[in-house]
Amino acid sequence: MTALYLVGIGTGDPGHLTLGAVAALNGADLILLPVKAGERGELAALRRALCATHLRDPAPPVTAFEMPERDPAIADYDARVRAWHDGIAARWAAAMSASGTAPASVALLVWGDPSLYDSTLRIAERLQANGAISAVHVVPGITAIQALCAAHRIPLNGIGQPVLVTTGRRLRADGWPADIPTVVVMLDGQCAFTTLLDRNLHIWWGAYLGMDREMLVAGPLADVSDRILAERQAARDRHGWIMDTYLLSAPADE
Amino acid sequence: MTALYLVGIGTGDPGHLTLGAVAALNGADLILLPVKAGERGELAALRRALCATHLRDPAPPVTAFEMPERDPAIADYDARVRAWHDGIAARWAAAMSASGTAPASVALLVWGDPSLYDSTLRIAERLQANGAISAVHVVPGITAIQALCAAHRIPLNGIGQPVLVTTGRRLRADGWPADIPTVVVMLDGQCAFTTLLDRNLHIWWGAYLGMDREMLVAGPLADVSDRILAERQAARDRHGWIMDTYLLSAPADE
Repeated sequence: MTALYLVGIGTGDPGHLTLGAVAALNGADLILLPVKAGERGELAALRRALCATHLRDPAPPVTAFEMPERDPAIADYDARVRAWHDGIAARWAAAMSASGTAPASVALLVWGDPSLYDSTLRIAERLQANGAISAVHVVPGITAIQALCAAHRIPLNGIGQPVLVTTGRRLRADGWPADIPTVVVMLDGQCAFTTLLDRNLHIWWGAYLGMDREMLVAGPLADVSDRILAERQAARDRHGWIMDTYLLSAPADE
Repeated sequence: MTALYLVGIGTGDPGHLTLGAVAALNGADLILLPVKAGERGELAALRRALCATHLRDPAPPVTAFEMPERDPAIADYDARVRAWHDGIAARWAAAMSASGTAPASVALLVWGDPSLYDSTLRIAERLQANGAISAVHVVPGITAIQALCAAHRIPLNGIGQPVLVTTGRRLRADGWPADIPTVVVMLDGQCAFTTLLDRNLHIWWGAYLGMDREMLVAGPLADVSDRILAERQAARDRHGWIMDTYLLSAPADE
């Protein structure tokens, strides 16, 4: 009977780690550390450093496993994601059983928070369904949305106003939502904000949020769009990867 | 020159506190502790306990100040909120200057995260405008949204899908949003979900999230609505206050 702890670790600032996350990592019999191809090992190193700093002696063993890639041969988006999740579940199961005996508790480090545009809960469901784990616990972590607002020192919402959280793909497909003054965009590798330059919007953009090399740009969208595109491309070329997110806001009527 | 640190402390679970929050509190020359009328001192005691547990000797002084109430004589919602923020800013300024010399850094404990349906950033703006503080820093904290999802072990969003974060007042006024499968409702003292019983929705509700007395109800909205109303009222009667939030989700087409 293995209990799985999905531990949100924030977005790269070691200060994002919660006391609950530190306790969950120290209470585990095994820590799983996902390594994504294309990160050049940098984020894996960051996760390892978190473990090295906060695990108390005797520390639980830390097992890294390489994340599979999505299969571009599967044309349908949902089917491609499902197959990918199946593949990740298989890697988790293999990593958990590598030690021979089933650990009583396994902690998995999750970038940001396990609830926000993250697949770990859905992958854990697969392992619960096939009996590889008996229970799932979630330790919440700081998300890129909070890191973005904190870095820019802005509220997420207008007073009493709604906020839409969406993806670049959806923003591009759906356009600006009716009657919603604030939109947060995640998972946007294609800079969907460039489709909204004709609207009177303000943007607060951030990349590598919480990390030493955090980048921030804010201003009227039409004025700063080109600057974001250029800085984003340069940073991506330099580091080999980028994670960014942004908030768009329509001016209040008042 | 006083720097103000707005420190998110999460929603009542001491494990929500981040390492960054602990550092910010210990680095302050003065800690401001807001006390809201109607909480019966319970949340103030929780904040005091966080300070007592995590402040290292010599600990900065902790000054409590009572939060003003909104003035029901001001009919316009926005004007009422603005007047209330002015009043809070005055209390902060008074608490900061009570010691005689201006502290170099002041930390203010913020429930949840300073960016989400919280007024502290707007109040800090007032103090920056009148010169009472020279800079604002935000330390993000775990929000009720993350605590809700963690407690129910659910993802916030469908795969690649948007999420609307809104208030009870807006949900009641605007109805269910078109083309958005998931809605998170905050600041809802009037149970706006009861206006949506004719829709095929699932609800994940939580109160006192992260606290020992955390309450959770989940199920088809029409089936569990009455149960939530009854349990919510009973808890509110028992404790004198309640904080709750919920996620509504329309079933996916697949």
